[in-house]
Amino acid sequence: MSIPTIAAVRKSLVAAPGKAFDLSVRDTSGRDIFPDKEAAETSLKKDAAVINELKDMLYAEGQRSLLVILQGMDTSGKSGTIKAVFSETTPLGMEVKAFKAPSTEELARDYLWRVHNAVPRRGHVGIFDRSHYEDVLVVRVRGFAPLEDVEKRYEQINAFEKHLSENGTTVLKFMLNIGYEEQGVRLKERLQETHKLWKFNPGDLDDRSKWTEFMQAYELAIKRCSTRHAPWYVMPADSRTRRNALIARVVRGALEGMDLKWKNPGYEPGSYDIS
Amino acid sequence: MSIPTIAAVRKSLVAAPGKAFDLSVRDTSGRDIFPDKEAAETSLKKDAAVINELKDMLYAEGQRSLLVILQGMDTSGKSGTIKAVFSETTPLGMEVKAFKAPSTEELARDYLWRVHNAVPRRGHVGIFDRSHYEDVLVVRVRGFAPLEDVEKRYEQINAFEKHLSENGTTVLKFMLNIGYEEQGVRLKERLQETHKLWKFNPGDLDDRSKWTEFMQAYELAIKRCSTRHAPWYVMPADSRTRRNALIARVVRGALEGMDLKWKNPGYEPGSYDIS
Repeated sequence: MSIPTIAAVRKSLVAAPGKAFDLSVRDTSGRDIFPDKEAAETSLKKDAAVINELKDMLYAEGQRSLLVILQGMDTSGKSGTIKAVFSETTPLGMEVKAFKAPSTEELARDYLWRVHNAVPRRGHVGIFDRSHYEDVLVVRVRGFAPLEDVEKRYEQINAFEKHLSENGTTVLKFMLNIGYEEQGVRLKERLQETHKLWKFNPGDLDDRSKWTEFMQAYELAIKRCSTRHAPWYVMPADSRTRRNALIARVVRGALEGMDLKWKNPGYEPGSYDIS
Repeated sequence: MSIPTIAAVRKSLVAAPGKAFDLSVRDTSGRDIFPDKEAAETSLKKDAAVINELKDMLYAEGQRSLLVILQGMDTSGKSGTIKAVFSETTPLGMEVKAFKAPSTEELARDYLWRVHNAVPRRGHVGIFDRSHYEDVLVVRVRGFAPLEDVEKRYEQINAFEKHLSENGTTVLKFMLNIGYEEQGVRLKERLQETHKLWKFNPGDLDDRSKWTEFMQAYELAIKRCSTRHAPWYVMPADSRTRRNALIARVVRGALEGMDLKWKNPGYEPGSYDIS
């Protein structure tokens, strides 16, 4: 059974900060790094259990936080990822924020206002299902803001994420990289299955028709905003099993990298006599 | 009657970005720039009226905002300034936020979380009575955070204010520069007058006993965070009249610099027949 090491997964899927980046050559299948699908299932199960343990330690420590940002085209599996990677994790201490089209109140402030407001508190794991990256993705493709404003946002986002990172939040960014073909298959599925139909939105087809433009916007965002303090990982997303397993590897690696310890309570537990 | 021009006030009181800055040589009286106290009163009255007009135009435009940050030692007149400079201004479209010691919820996030949350919406004038600068002032002097964390904050603050400025918020920062002697006089007043007693806090004396350390922290904050997009103004604050008049000059100048126009409604008002 061949499970790639966390280091190997990271190295192979990160968009290395400051290096050239070409989204079109990135694999969407995940077969190279995780050939054995059964191994991927086993790996996910183990990692989910470890993630649960480490998340409890983060909660007990109460000093730092982890922010997982999920971006990807429709059907790339943002919600499926959350369900799978945190399947063992109690919702206590988890904060999931799904960003929708901004409200009137949100539009009345700068685009990071609602995002900053939603960052996880110390001790928590926060998950953004979509994020401030929409402000350089769909906003760029659809021209919802002047291009010169969008151009300024990459640097603003880097400064914001650096600030979070310097103030105790580990920032992990995942682009769920699904292929055009596979998206077609999944959109058809949505139309055919009663329990998936609610997810279908005719607007998704609009986005699909602008696939090339979206990929260009993703490439730009990943290239400009993959930084040492908040790197981008480009995750093959054509296979749900491999996608989940690979993301769990990276999340586990990030939590392990935080060097969490059960807090020393500062007293001798044996000295209490509880009657 | 001699009223200094807005340009002269700005030039004389700004801490020029990127230049050397020495707080101890800054005048606290305001007599040089506003010798004639009666002229200061007249000037304030005129400016307050103009500020009211411009603020209404900002509100009508609804695209940009003005953020006025007030910092200063106790009794330097932060609330008196708000009362005087905006005496002609309706509270509609004004947002005043007084920052107190952070709550448990606030401490559980990065120190800019509550600040970003409080920025004014488009079309509004926001006033911060104290601000994120407390996180490099009292926090530095009292050691509420490790020095290496405080040292990182200047750059974080600059990035944050640059972000606000690039997203439509004009940021004005005023240090109300009161002298040690004058503070003594005012603290004594507070203890003697029934309607001022509520403002007295024995903790103020603690801060007073660390005057030199506070002045050093102010000097550092002003030197490191006076930027092109968010300059610091050091306002003489020993005379309430001169302080108010000088701040009104700069606020008026900032609003005038926004080049506000009554919006063209996009139709011919005469074409409506209202019966």
